[in-house]
Amino acid sequence: MNGQYKALWLNKDENLVVLDQRLLPFEKKEVIITNTQECIDAIKDMTVRGAGVIGNTAAFGVYLASKEAGFDIEKLKILSNKIRESRPTAVNLMWAVDRMVAVATTCSKETMCAVLKQEAINITDEEVIATQKIATYGADEFEKIVEKKGKSKEDTINILTHCNAGWLAIVDLGSALAPIYELQKRGRKVHVWVDETRPRNQGANLTAWELSQDNVPHTVIADNTGGYLMQQGMVDICITGADRVSRNGDVANKIGTYLKALSAKDNDIPFFVALPTSTFDFEIYDGVKDIPIETRSEDEVKFIRGIDKKGEIQELQIVQSVSNAINYGFDITPARLVSGLITQRGITKADLKSIEKEFSDLL
Amino acid sequence: MNGQYKALWLNKDENLVVLDQRLLPFEKKEVIITNTQECIDAIKDMTVRGAGVIGNTAAFGVYLASKEAGFDIEKLKILSNKIRESRPTAVNLMWAVDRMVAVATTCSKETMCAVLKQEAINITDEEVIATQKIATYGADEFEKIVEKKGKSKEDTINILTHCNAGWLAIVDLGSALAPIYELQKRGRKVHVWVDETRPRNQGANLTAWELSQDNVPHTVIADNTGGYLMQQGMVDICITGADRVSRNGDVANKIGTYLKALSAKDNDIPFFVALPTSTFDFEIYDGVKDIPIETRSEDEVKFIRGIDKKGEIQELQIVQSVSNAINYGFDITPARLVSGLITQRGITKADLKSIEKEFSDLL
Repeated sequence: MNGQYKALWLNKDENLVVLDQRLLPFEKKEVIITNTQECIDAIKDMTVRGAGVIGNTAAFGVYLASKEAGFDIEKLKILSNKIRESRPTAVNLMWAVDRMVAVATTCSKETMCAVLKQEAINITDEEVIATQKIATYGADEFEKIVEKKGKSKEDTINILTHCNAGWLAIVDLGSALAPIYELQKRGRKVHVWVDETRPRNQGANLTAWELSQDNVPHTVIADNTGGYLMQQGMVDICITGADRVSRNGDVANKIGTYLKALSAKDNDIPFFVALPTSTFDFEIYDGVKDIPIETRSEDEVKFIRGIDKKGEIQELQIVQSVSNAINYGFDITPARLVSGLITQRGITKADLKSIEKEFSDLL
Repeated sequence: MNGQYKALWLNKDENLVVLDQRLLPFEKKEVIITNTQECIDAIKDMTVRGAGVIGNTAAFGVYLASKEAGFDIEKLKILSNKIRESRPTAVNLMWAVDRMVAVATTCSKETMCAVLKQEAINITDEEVIATQKIATYGADEFEKIVEKKGKSKEDTINILTHCNAGWLAIVDLGSALAPIYELQKRGRKVHVWVDETRPRNQGANLTAWELSQDNVPHTVIADNTGGYLMQQGMVDICITGADRVSRNGDVANKIGTYLKALSAKDNDIPFFVALPTSTFDFEIYDGVKDIPIETRSEDEVKFIRGIDKKGEIQELQIVQSVSNAINYGFDITPARLVSGLITQRGITKADLKSIEKEFSDLL
């Protein structure tokens, strides 16, 4: 990592290049985004996904939209709003678009292009620094936890994660995976339980791929398996990313996160959530009630992608046509199940008072 | 149901016929079992599965083995023991084999064939009656629960189930699905949330197929989804089957059951387990510690079966080759999370005292 891998970048034509995350790990394909609609499509169809990278893509999307709008601020606002509405749950999307539009309103037509390009780069660069700090704070905390458990420096630290919150989700160390990469850098033995994360299998497809790129030992498991592993003492720590965290510490993250948090609680295993501060939504006081949850196509449940014996990517139907399916993208993990929020400022308790105190300058 | 569908039967040659449950819902194929090894293979490779049907298959397997053994009791014991060891978790398997062997020891060589055939039929017939009683007791209980919640007779009862515990698992109404079929028979509106049940997708493949055969409204969901549905008040009752229930009421069932039970508890939703009494293991006092859990091939996680655009069954690889996977077949739901055990004797609390009182004649 550290610049070795990137989920998105500007090419020499100043268009946005992203990795097509729908084809990984079986094919590494770059997609070029040149305008507003392509940006919206890439976010909607999950060519890009992950709270941070959605925000970054949207930020560069606003930059591209400004050219399309002929640097007319009113036209830009309309295009930006379309990008802003492309997915409903990850708040980094709204945050990034709002920040870009706010900057645009301070520009003249002449300066807008350069200023917006720089602002999108700034947003991304700030997140790089945030992930580096999350890595350090998280690894420090995890080392303390396993030491307290009586593990030696030679013992393997077993960490369970759900979905993908690595550098494919937040440049360039990820949120949930950042402390894991850091622990490995420190010479600690780490092993990651990777929830496959149905229905889109971001764990099996993306997290396992990321970890294998960096030679981090890992095992892919069905999403059903984590509870048993925790019962058997095979998990030291759980960590996930987040798509939106409310002011009271409730966490919207990939569907199924809540079930793992319940199991961690039941087995007295720490459950951490890692996020850059851009993932907070301080306007929402009750995440369970008020964070909007995306419903996606039932086809994501009924069809699955993989490779055939020739290594070619194919799709199969795995649910009979006469059955209905439903596909909620996220669930809410109540703050009471979260051991701590790991941000670029350190570890914060997941409750209203602690969050308001730590992030008072952002409220 | 009620004899309309059967998961297994004897054909005119007195061999066992089973439905190949690995190919459903996309292909309905019958497999003929003629000897001990074919019986073991069918259980191991999950041509048949489900606690009850595994027990029935094993019982008929002992009958077939008796012919192979030339009705020599010592030879039969050796063959029977191989059947007994074909899978480790579902106790109906051991229970059925032990019952068959016990009967065999009372036979002469001349009577053994007829007696064992009748005993295997008896085991199956007793389970048919058990499922009818489970249907009635369960439906009575569920009607009470939703009435207490303030639902009218016109309101839909939303029931979540995991894996398959229908007539493909226990002839001929199933355990978990029996009360659902009964509610529908009574004219109640029922809707079933069907966990797809990775990695082998018995929910999507078998439960959804069974329910569609009987026109029971249902929706297939990723295993990650149940927690969110419960948070949102979209589930009235959870019910699953069991592979083994210990004397203290701990429930071994398909991996992932524990996570749904945790979520039901957290959202104050009743969580029932339905089983014939043959699924109890009264020798085990602490199910969480002492019920053996099967580890199956990682290929069940890494590969998936479905149909291509031509409707042909194909297999795809869905986890990259360089990643490890692990595949535990079951987990244990502690008794404290179980609202009640539904057996042919009624509803019993899941605790040592209640179980010992209700089933004192079986201890």
